[in-house]
Amino acid sequence: MNTRFYNARILTVSDCEIKLGEVWVEGSKIAYCGEKKASDITFDREIDLDGNVIMPSFKNAHTHSAMTFLRSYADDLPLDEWLHTAVFPMEAKLTGEDVYWLTKLAVMEYLTSGTSACFDMYMKLEDAAKAVTECGFRMVMSGAVNNFNDDALGDLEKYYNRFNNYNELVSYKLGFHAEYTTSINILEGISEIAHKYKAPVYAHNSETASEVKGCIDRYGKTPTELMESLGLFDFGGGGYHCVHMSQNDLDIFKQRGLYAVTNPASNCKLASGIAPLAKMSQMGIRLAIGTDGPASNNALDMFREMYLAYALQNISCCNAAAFSPYELLKMATSGGAMAMGLESCDDIAVGKSADLIVIDLKQPNMQPLNNIPKNIVYSGSKQNVVLTMVNGRILYENGIFNINADPQEIYSKSNEITERIKTS
Amino acid sequence: MNTRFYNARILTVSDCEIKLGEVWVEGSKIAYCGEKKASDITFDREIDLDGNVIMPSFKNAHTHSAMTFLRSYADDLPLDEWLHTAVFPMEAKLTGEDVYWLTKLAVMEYLTSGTSACFDMYMKLEDAAKAVTECGFRMVMSGAVNNFNDDALGDLEKYYNRFNNYNELVSYKLGFHAEYTTSINILEGISEIAHKYKAPVYAHNSETASEVKGCIDRYGKTPTELMESLGLFDFGGGGYHCVHMSQNDLDIFKQRGLYAVTNPASNCKLASGIAPLAKMSQMGIRLAIGTDGPASNNALDMFREMYLAYALQNISCCNAAAFSPYELLKMATSGGAMAMGLESCDDIAVGKSADLIVIDLKQPNMQPLNNIPKNIVYSGSKQNVVLTMVNGRILYENGIFNINADPQEIYSKSNEITERIKTS
Repeated sequence: MNTRFYNARILTVSDCEIKLGEVWVEGSKIAYCGEKKASDITFDREIDLDGNVIMPSFKNAHTHSAMTFLRSYADDLPLDEWLHTAVFPMEAKLTGEDVYWLTKLAVMEYLTSGTSACFDMYMKLEDAAKAVTECGFRMVMSGAVNNFNDDALGDLEKYYNRFNNYNELVSYKLGFHAEYTTSINILEGISEIAHKYKAPVYAHNSETASEVKGCIDRYGKTPTELMESLGLFDFGGGGYHCVHMSQNDLDIFKQRGLYAVTNPASNCKLASGIAPLAKMSQMGIRLAIGTDGPASNNALDMFREMYLAYALQNISCCNAAAFSPYELLKMATSGGAMAMGLESCDDIAVGKSADLIVIDLKQPNMQPLNNIPKNIVYSGSKQNVVLTMVNGRILYENGIFNINADPQEIYSKSNEITERIKTS
Repeated sequence: MNTRFYNARILTVSDCEIKLGEVWVEGSKIAYCGEKKASDITFDREIDLDGNVIMPSFKNAHTHSAMTFLRSYADDLPLDEWLHTAVFPMEAKLTGEDVYWLTKLAVMEYLTSGTSACFDMYMKLEDAAKAVTECGFRMVMSGAVNNFNDDALGDLEKYYNRFNNYNELVSYKLGFHAEYTTSINILEGISEIAHKYKAPVYAHNSETASEVKGCIDRYGKTPTELMESLGLFDFGGGGYHCVHMSQNDLDIFKQRGLYAVTNPASNCKLASGIAPLAKMSQMGIRLAIGTDGPASNNALDMFREMYLAYALQNISCCNAAAFSPYELLKMATSGGAMAMGLESCDDIAVGKSADLIVIDLKQPNMQPLNNIPKNIVYSGSKQNVVLTMVNGRILYENGIFNINADPQEIYSKSNEITERIKTS
């Protein structure tokens, strides 16, 4: 499948520049990006963008996709109570088939907000991989090791090998749920596996003040310090949330080149706090954005996350220029790609994977055209996304899904599953 | 024009209940709301909602519509610098025709997020009234008296009589810009007019800490205390923003039945602070939500405002249940209507004005249907708005505008005006 986009405003996020021209997609890759010229490629489709923006897709760098079933069910509770009363008992009832359908529902929502890939920490991985692969969506799985599995380390290594050799849309990163749910013995075992494969490690990190306090009480170290001391960051990796970070934690992130993945809506929903993004950015720490799961957000909308990250930094820094909108755009696109090991999906450039979106400027919230990147970050909405392409395939266009599945069936199944779990 | 909506989920905000049934619109009013039954009305259109939600439209209770030209231009500055370097010099170049086109652009954006009416504080009122009337949109004008008009009080009374006798879509409330831009003599004059007409008074109030400090330095009173002492609240009214409120200010708001209109995105953009909505709600103070103008937001999206109000309360109160989603929905609909004196536009009920919207539940962010009002507040997006009706007329449906104007012309004119102002 080869696609030509012409009459485009091409927005590259490496420089936040806009150039007029064309983008050619040959198979799964970007074959050309530049001024209008003749092509010897045979295109299956030629799409006149009529001045609309083509840009790299968003990468949702932390989520738990199949938690769609808890949307608007597990609300208005602090994290600890939310996890133990609303989330864990319900999750225990999930089957593999449930995860398959609930993941497909999440994929649909990702596509509507221009997201082409998610960094997913969840369970029933065979079913999740099947769901995204059938849809044509990209998923990087994050290990979710914790104390409640019988063979957590064995599974981690098994999954690592299984899902890094699955297909081009699926990959797997070493990871664990969080320090407070994972014993020191298991953490040491994860470090051994990380060293064996020279692989980065990811986990929820310093999401709440009580998490950090608990870790210090147990080990005399913050979660970041503990992970560093165990060699878990010897090959890089990152942390989800990173709200309550000490200066030493930030220094470790900077020194190790770790990714801090911010989840502003989740941190508001669970009243966890505001991540120090402005300070992190000033220090040169690598940043990405995620929605977290639909139980802790409740939407999977990268426009909302970008805007919220901006709004919260201004408030917490008491500074109307606390954070650059251009950096937010990078975090949500190339930053996420790099955090997830999707180096070929970070921008619009020749040879890169064709993971891209089209933004409709002919909507009132995108007018006038004073500054298009700012329009996208400060006024943009998922409604402006008129096309989402993943790995060279158009999966969403003008509100229509092309995911080898019937949306109505996905909605029906999701409601059936939710009702069964709530009433069983 | 008579319209029948059937197979509807009718969401009334007075009780946040959903009932299955029909809504009939006869002319500009709701003629029936209830279970399916035969009708003797001749309908021009019968719309099968197929289970989608019909609910009262949003009322944007504080904005400056024509400031669309400054979207993504006046950014990343604190309020004082933003006003004096980016806003006032540009606004001085606006003509009446500019305001006409720029207001139409805002109306389009309001309609896309399900907003049927705005409480607008701006200038060139004849042109704004012409613009909204041609579109069929509802505007309540707020007086914007300040020190820079030659005949501020004469104009206020003239406008009051002119625009309260203009047509059914336009009305006018007494008001002034803010204490810090309005002398005590003028404030006393506004109080006289308020007493003459027994009319409520509205103004920007306690938006920033420095505004409050300046007022205390000048008068030994907060802005709320000063207005109360001058009799400006003797017939009610309200304040826009209300971020930095003392206990006595809140007591005055409660006692006088004043409306506090919150503008969370604006308060983040300008790093002004977080309004104490949870406390206000606990005290029983009347609440509404506005976007503020597109220069200080930058979008005109009531979904974003509702979500941001919720997120900020959780953070500022360190409480994951700081504010009720049902109350947010009321604030954004009936609360705004009451604040603006649109008592007939507050909800879906017989005899009320047909100012209503349809929410598409067949989109992934609205599934599953655990709790529809929470889905709307916590996951909702303007993309879910598939129909906006104002005063019985469908002005927006499935992305198409029916506003007696060509959207492309409005975009072109808005860009031309913006370029002229930036370069002249």
